[in-house]
Amino acid sequence: MEKETGRMEGFSDGVFAIAITLLVLDLHVPDENSIKKGSDLIIFLKNQWPAFLAFVLSFFSIFIMWVNHHKIFKQIYRRNSAITFANGLILFLVSAVSYPTALLARYFDGEASSIVVAIYTGIFVLINISYNLLWYLASKNKELLRPGITNIAIKKIHNNYLYGLPIYLTALILSFWIPTISLIIILGLWIYWAVSSGKIEMHFNNSHKH
Amino acid sequence: MEKETGRMEGFSDGVFAIAITLLVLDLHVPDENSIKKGSDLIIFLKNQWPAFLAFVLSFFSIFIMWVNHHKIFKQIYRRNSAITFANGLILFLVSAVSYPTALLARYFDGEASSIVVAIYTGIFVLINISYNLLWYLASKNKELLRPGITNIAIKKIHNNYLYGLPIYLTALILSFWIPTISLIIILGLWIYWAVSSGKIEMHFNNSHKH
Amino acid sequence: MEKETGRMEGFSDGVFAIAITLLVLDLHVPDENSIKKGSDLIIFLKNQWPAFLAFVLSFFSIFIMWVNHHKIFKQIYRRNSAITFANGLILFLVSAVSYPTALLARYFDGEASSIVVAIYTGIFVLINISYNLLWYLASKNKELLRPGITNIAIKKIHNNYLYGLPIYLTALILSFWIPTISLIIILGLWIYWAVSSGKIEMHFNNSHKH
Amino acid sequence: MEKETGRMEGFSDGVFAIAITLLVLDLHVPDENSIKKGSDLIIFLKNQWPAFLAFVLSFFSIFIMWVNHHKIFKQIYRRNSAITFANGLILFLVSAVSYPTALLARYFDGEASSIVVAIYTGIFVLINISYNLLWYLASKNKELLRPGITNIAIKKIHNNYLYGLPIYLTALILSFWIPTISLIIILGLWIYWAVSSGKIEMHFNNSHKH
Repeated sequence: MEKETGRMEGFSDGVFAIAITLLVLDLHVPDENSIKKGSDLIIFLKNQWPAFLAFVLSFFSIFIMWVNHHKIFKQIYRRNSAITFANGLILFLVSAVSYPTALLARYFDGEASSIVVAIYTGIFVLINISYNLLWYLASKNKELLRPGITNIAIKKIHNNYLYGLPIYLTALILSFWIPTISLIIILGLWIYWAVSSGKIEMHFNNSHKH
Repeated sequence: MEKETGRMEGFSDGVFAIAITLLVLDLHVPDENSIKKGSDLIIFLKNQWPAFLAFVLSFFSIFIMWVNHHKIFKQIYRRNSAITFANGLILFLVSAVSYPTALLARYFDGEASSIVVAIYTGIFVLINISYNLLWYLASKNKELLRPGITNIAIKKIHNNYLYGLPIYLTALILSFWIPTISLIIILGLWIYWAVSSGKIEMHFNNSHKH
Repeated sequence: MEKETGRMEGFSDGVFAIAITLLVLDLHVPDENSIKKGSDLIIFLKNQWPAFLAFVLSFFSIFIMWVNHHKIFKQIYRRNSAITFANGLILFLVSAVSYPTALLARYFDGEASSIVVAIYTGIFVLINISYNLLWYLASKNKELLRPGITNIAIKKIHNNYLYGLPIYLTALILSFWIPTISLIIILGLWIYWAVSSGKIEMHFNNSHKH
Repeated sequence: MEKETGRMEGFSDGVFAIAITLLVLDLHVPDENSIKKGSDLIIFLKNQWPAFLAFVLSFFSIFIMWVNHHKIFKQIYRRNSAITFANGLILFLVSAVSYPTALLARYFDGEASSIVVAIYTGIFVLINISYNLLWYLASKNKELLRPGITNIAIKKIHNNYLYGLPIYLTALILSFWIPTISLIIILGLWIYWAVSSGKIEMHFNNSHKH
């Protein structure tokens, strides 16, 4: 059976690529009259650390989302309207990530810190839910999936996304008290996802060989 | 017969993907000196509701346009200059959507409300006309279409777009008196299109089986 | 022989698609405090006419360039370093078009009119030269071209680009006296290209049949 | 063996294409009230020369990086998590190039010149390291590479990137004393890479024939 999701993947790749590349627009260049000499520029850049942190964090978060999108769509061979719109929801949230990133960049280092971390973790809760939705809609109808995919493999992907939800929610709730811990949790979850996505891949490669 | 519209679809996907992702640039981050504490930020974000509404509305409108573009080009196998330029007209209008969106975001909640809703609905009238034009130009020459497409299927797609025109025109005219109703009509039409595009797809999938 | 220019075309399509979609960022939304009622907005939009003109002109110019890029690369099957860098030059100029467009949008209606039209026509002179260069580099080595392409077809494409050069140069020189005429010449040339590219296409389609 | 890196290359092409096209946004259009007549605009544009220099330099640097990315991935047939993340690192740095470019554009012609050239050359040091890392990770496991690739070819690509590192580091160190020389070194290296990438290509094309 031929895969018929090609153009949907191409369009999604486009949105991911643009969303990830637009993040750099949130790094601001200082006004010419505020910088008299080299050391002024260094001080300006040092004070911009939340913007650089937010840039790195959001870049790799969108990158890992893209890796996961790629992994899920390797298992989806046909599409229907439900999958199209669940994918649209993911793309909507991914394209929106730059706004909470810009808020985080400007207000993490100040009084509004809790609010911006809550909004930032909040969008990742929503993205996690939309990935769960996409896989739920795809996997409830095995005709849409790669022929020969095992129930164990389906379950494994399912669990991989479901386990993320309580952790993101914890990060969201904690952001109101200790916002820094929330960001560390999210960072930790990405490292976990990067590693576990490597494992899922190995699992599939091994099952191909048998 | 091999499809020869591949690069045109790829280019169109690129324009759709960029147009949809650039919309987020219309969400503004407040100036640092206007925000002293968390509650100031919440008030700022609450007052920004027309910008969020415009962002959601335009994102999903472009997304549905992309879905429809995808559906139409699944039926077009060859291209000529007329189709190339009708497609160019669609891409021009899609890339322009972010400007009426920015106007709507800034002025929906105020005196200029009617004007911005009229401009916003106006661009969707034009997009509807350009889709009608594309399908008219493609379907008048059956050599350009997928081999084996039935006249009933051609007519069905034709009607799907033609029915949208009087509704968009109604929304445009109403915008001068009750702009909120105009936006609700457009929203309703998108839900209708999302559902009906699902039906057309089913229709084709069924006809494939016979 | 398989075409090996796939990834180069994909990358070029990306640059064309982004360059064409970024043009909309030059349309400015008025400040909230300068607009009190609907009629203020209409006056603002009317005064913005050079920006809308520049947007339309540049959008369709890049679109026609993309159509021509597509046509040329349908005839190129292999690539070398020279073609790669001639293509890079085209992409550089295409991505730069938005800057002369922004200058035209802001200064066409004023004292600096001649200068901005000269810069605007100047970039199209350069783009024309780079297309001539690309086709010269590709066609001097028939091993790089589509097998079976005739010398007449090679010559026809060659002439199509070469004839543009003196006309663009005329538009550039005229811009110092009557800038409006320069823009009309460019507009006329695009219409000619749109029509003639349709004819080249027909020529190739007919030659396929024989 | 079929190549399985298609979607990774497509996504990377997207990021390269956007990063290269966004550079034009750093060219600023003067405020309307600062320009009274044509000669004011010419003076403004002349003073902008560091911005034009930075634009050209960064455009062709990203373009050559894309050419090199293309060359490396022609040799990589399978991917694993390590390659995915090394590629992610390259894309991160490529998407970030526009920020040092904007700093260079604004401060090259002034007191902060050394700092901005150091930052600008610094990002190319990092990009060079990440290309070395990608090829190290890919080539240590010959199962990932194009079947039939020779050890000499692997070594050749390896050396091509490794030789760049000490030169970039020299440019970085020199930037603190004579920033202009640093930029000239980088420019020279790009010309070298453009030429040497042509040679590697010839090498592979010849080895295909045997």
